[in-house]
Amino acid sequence: MTRTEDRAGPPRIDGLQYARWSEKVFRQMRAGRVDAVHATICYHESFRETVETIVAWNRLFEAHADLVVQGFAAKDVDRARAEGRTAIFFGAQNPSCLDGDIGLIEVLHRLGLRFLQPTYNNQSLLGTGHAEAEDAGLTRMGREAVAEMNRLGVVIDMSHAGERTTLEAIAASARPVTVSHANPASWHEVSRNVSDRVLDALRDSGGMLGFSLYPLHLKGGGACSLEAFCDMVARTAERIGVARLGIGSDLCQDQPDSVVEWMRNGRWTKRGAPAAFPDQPEWFRDNRDFDGLAAGLSAAGFDAEEVGMILGGNWRRFFADSFGPGR
Amino acid sequence: MTRTEDRAGPPRIDGLQYARWSEKVFRQMRAGRVDAVHATICYHESFRETVETIVAWNRLFEAHADLVVQGFAAKDVDRARAEGRTAIFFGAQNPSCLDGDIGLIEVLHRLGLRFLQPTYNNQSLLGTGHAEAEDAGLTRMGREAVAEMNRLGVVIDMSHAGERTTLEAIAASARPVTVSHANPASWHEVSRNVSDRVLDALRDSGGMLGFSLYPLHLKGGGACSLEAFCDMVARTAERIGVARLGIGSDLCQDQPDSVVEWMRNGRWTKRGAPAAFPDQPEWFRDNRDFDGLAAGLSAAGFDAEEVGMILGGNWRRFFADSFGPGR
Repeated sequence: MTRTEDRAGPPRIDGLQYARWSEKVFRQMRAGRVDAVHATICYHESFRETVETIVAWNRLFEAHADLVVQGFAAKDVDRARAEGRTAIFFGAQNPSCLDGDIGLIEVLHRLGLRFLQPTYNNQSLLGTGHAEAEDAGLTRMGREAVAEMNRLGVVIDMSHAGERTTLEAIAASARPVTVSHANPASWHEVSRNVSDRVLDALRDSGGMLGFSLYPLHLKGGGACSLEAFCDMVARTAERIGVARLGIGSDLCQDQPDSVVEWMRNGRWTKRGAPAAFPDQPEWFRDNRDFDGLAAGLSAAGFDAEEVGMILGGNWRRFFADSFGPGR
Repeated sequence: MTRTEDRAGPPRIDGLQYARWSEKVFRQMRAGRVDAVHATICYHESFRETVETIVAWNRLFEAHADLVVQGFAAKDVDRARAEGRTAIFFGAQNPSCLDGDIGLIEVLHRLGLRFLQPTYNNQSLLGTGHAEAEDAGLTRMGREAVAEMNRLGVVIDMSHAGERTTLEAIAASARPVTVSHANPASWHEVSRNVSDRVLDALRDSGGMLGFSLYPLHLKGGGACSLEAFCDMVARTAERIGVARLGIGSDLCQDQPDSVVEWMRNGRWTKRGAPAAFPDQPEWFRDNRDFDGLAAGLSAAGFDAEEVGMILGGNWRRFFADSFGPGR
């Protein structure tokens, strides 16, 4: 049974996940008709450690070739869908994997890296994360990295960045930028969510916002209702247009709490507090809940074409515009 | 001016070089109408160090895009030739770049590695080099690596291996194997050259021998005449057939003597003697000397078609058969 038999319209794409990958998760992707996923391969890892994560992914691709396949180009989404598989696109949430070497962007691009965040919460060699007290903007190396990512076709993902760094990256980039997993701060005021200035800059530059389903990014946390979430999507569409919107669920399914401690504390502090993953909203627990999301968006007033755009059509277009070499 | 305007017949391919790469060398490749070169990227380097060599190559590809382009598939030879460029295919002379991790074969393959020697002179994790007193054959990991290279499309290159390891690799491999740069030991008896048993095994398995122009592999060293070399080629053709023959010049142009010391001593000894590159034969000093080689092969009795096969047609066919995924 292939996807094209099940469903017309654009592919279904999740703009960010970091599950404890398994056959179970992959089967749920298929059950949820998710044709492509941007999967994180680096939080604080060095280049060498990130390569070992790629090695682990290669084993998954080989062992579960009936369910998943690595994606390199937008057309791989269509091919995966036609074959009843999910295309996995690699992304790094932190430039730690560059080891401070701009040449490793091209190496990682060759290995399939299609998204790279210049910062992850903290100051990096490239820019400032949202959790720093001062945001000094894109660094010297940050500007070089933006140009190199533009040249190669690696998407600049400003999730987890500070506002100034985000705005400067959008301005410096010759190609549209994304915030792959965050929500408007006007709806839920936390520093990981994005300001109206950032939203407007994404709109004006042809970028993309992926709405997050991670409880800390939701008004009311895990108790946030589907209706409240979809109403927020509708209000964001009014501001920046439906063509700029996608989902970046930030789903961290089946991960032990040690993983959220690694995300937060990495190796940059010895004093990291214990942390635990918050409970997901009951209406978004795994990849099978995309159907419910579609229904919620319809109930919020989006027509079928718009629902298709938000759940994957816009990412498909953005992938096609972003993954090839720059001009 | 493109190559196709200059010359009919098959492409011209060198099955091994390790020059001090430069615009000068690349321009000589074009002047010598060399359409593809297998270039060494690892002698004793770790994975991480080998990646830095790839980064350096990426800079060369970017800076000299009019002269060279990275090759991944056999058709890239034809494309490079049509564009008046030389396709560079990466190879490792030592599995040190695997860091003992079989998963790195796939990573390096993705980065363009198309040749891998299981051993370089010494015992490795995969097999025994020609310079060891005892050759215990292909190791447990060596057998796993052969299967993985077969699966991915990385050519098993038995240059620098011991005879038993070579014969066992040929037997273990489901796909043809090469000795990319060596000559028959029956012509010049040094342990780096190959026995008649190895030649016959290459013949029977559809493999390839690349004739070396490195003085230590030549009868008489740098004083070896073009006539003597080409006569040796003719005698080898009588034994294993012209279709099994190519050139793997082992040209180490413009390298300082510190490089031959690195090749020989790496980091495995603290007592390595000083070494110097021997003088090349005066008739083969750089890539422009391929025309002279063609003339020498004609004088030795090969017809035009056979000369084309030896100078690249056979490698082209072998690349096409070898670089795709295994069945």
